[in-house]
Amino acid sequence: MQCDIGCEKTRIENFIRQAIWSAGAEGVVVGVSGGIDSAVVTALASGSLGSDRVSAFFLPSATTPPADEEDVRRLCQDLSIDLQVIPIDGIIDAYRRMDGFVEEPSLVGNLMARTRMAILYYQANLSNRLVIGTSNRTEYLIGYCTKWGDNAADLQPILHLSKQDVYLLGEELRIPGTIMKKVPSAGLWEGQSDEKELGITYPVLDATLALLEENGWKAEGEIQERVLEMVKRSVHKRMPAFSLAGSSPRCE
Amino acid sequence: MQCDIGCEKTRIENFIRQAIWSAGAEGVVVGVSGGIDSAVVTALASGSLGSDRVSAFFLPSATTPPADEEDVRRLCQDLSIDLQVIPIDGIIDAYRRMDGFVEEPSLVGNLMARTRMAILYYQANLSNRLVIGTSNRTEYLIGYCTKWGDNAADLQPILHLSKQDVYLLGEELRIPGTIMKKVPSAGLWEGQSDEKELGITYPVLDATLALLEENGWKAEGEIQERVLEMVKRSVHKRMPAFSLAGSSPRCE
Repeated sequence: MQCDIGCEKTRIENFIRQAIWSAGAEGVVVGVSGGIDSAVVTALASGSLGSDRVSAFFLPSATTPPADEEDVRRLCQDLSIDLQVIPIDGIIDAYRRMDGFVEEPSLVGNLMARTRMAILYYQANLSNRLVIGTSNRTEYLIGYCTKWGDNAADLQPILHLSKQDVYLLGEELRIPGTIMKKVPSAGLWEGQSDEKELGITYPVLDATLALLEENGWKAEGEIQERVLEMVKRSVHKRMPAFSLAGSSPRCE
Repeated sequence: MQCDIGCEKTRIENFIRQAIWSAGAEGVVVGVSGGIDSAVVTALASGSLGSDRVSAFFLPSATTPPADEEDVRRLCQDLSIDLQVIPIDGIIDAYRRMDGFVEEPSLVGNLMARTRMAILYYQANLSNRLVIGTSNRTEYLIGYCTKWGDNAADLQPILHLSKQDVYLLGEELRIPGTIMKKVPSAGLWEGQSDEKELGITYPVLDATLALLEENGWKAEGEIQERVLEMVKRSVHKRMPAFSLAGSSPRCE
């Protein structure tokens, strides 16, 4: 974080307001999961634009824990934000009826993330709003996201913050304790835990990324090497598609 | 185009091969519509990688003209490429069952484009292939595409080519005449014609974009102003999401 937590909150709220105004939009649409990232973004958007310019959508699947819905309802009630619940199982089941469909958790997880993106954009288009993203810098750098799925949005107000910074902001914003203390999960299958799946805790991951950045992305030791590998493997998620646009002619 | 048509074909084929090799992928997945852009990309990919490393998917909806499927079958047969047909209506109908769904053609069109993207990525992930995009420079510059939909791909081999250049390449690649002579259409609703929807023909559009670019994107006259407006309005489709990443602290 570049300044103290109160100023960071203000800085982000100003950024959101400016992005919405310059686009001529009526407000934002946010996908709320019951996790810390989307809770923080929702609270920031509400503080920035006012609660009537924020529409929250909870998009559960069969594997979403019921407690998440309670947490989301409480959060939106606290913030006086309109919440719509749209289960996505019917849509995912329709994908399952494709010829040759294979029930592979990571692939179904990607379908779920992309379906949520499509629903959020549908809702945003309906009401002339923008889709506000909830990606943080930690998951962005290691590519822990679905390309054109949860990482696809019109503005990304916490993309510059580590997971640890998101927690600090969550405290500042008085996000409910059940969300603050929840085990982080992408929620793409039952019992999924980010830290278990990645094989590293967020505090270690954040510290390792900070060290790598300081050292010009040169890895020292096994942990740094493993994290750097994640960063390298996911470059394609952070870059525009490969193309010849802007290249000089090479015809020899 | 930066060099003669035969050399351009070779340059793009080399580019595709390099992109696939550097990603360690087995080949590409392409969505074929029966239109000129996807036909040209499919032929280039086949020439570059060999026909067994290209999987074509035709993803029709209820509004897709039956002639498109015939054209796609003939193209894939000519190129000895494996083709799978996956109708998307079941998935779109599942979206239609959302609470508060409104049957608005442009919004349904966006759902269709994003559904096709999700299917192509599902198929690509299944077989360790990349998704090859079919966007050309003309539609890219004016934003005639669905964000995170048809413009979402891992590599974009014709993104530097105007619509007119794509036709030249189509001749060079001996794309079947029924595809070459077809009225260009995004195919998102019945009877859709790009040129009718845009209110400008592709030759005029390409010439106008070339003039605008030469003049540093300063518009002269009504047509240039209208095209420049399209370019400006669609900047968000060509840029990363707004964020504070990389910004310097401004806390005053």
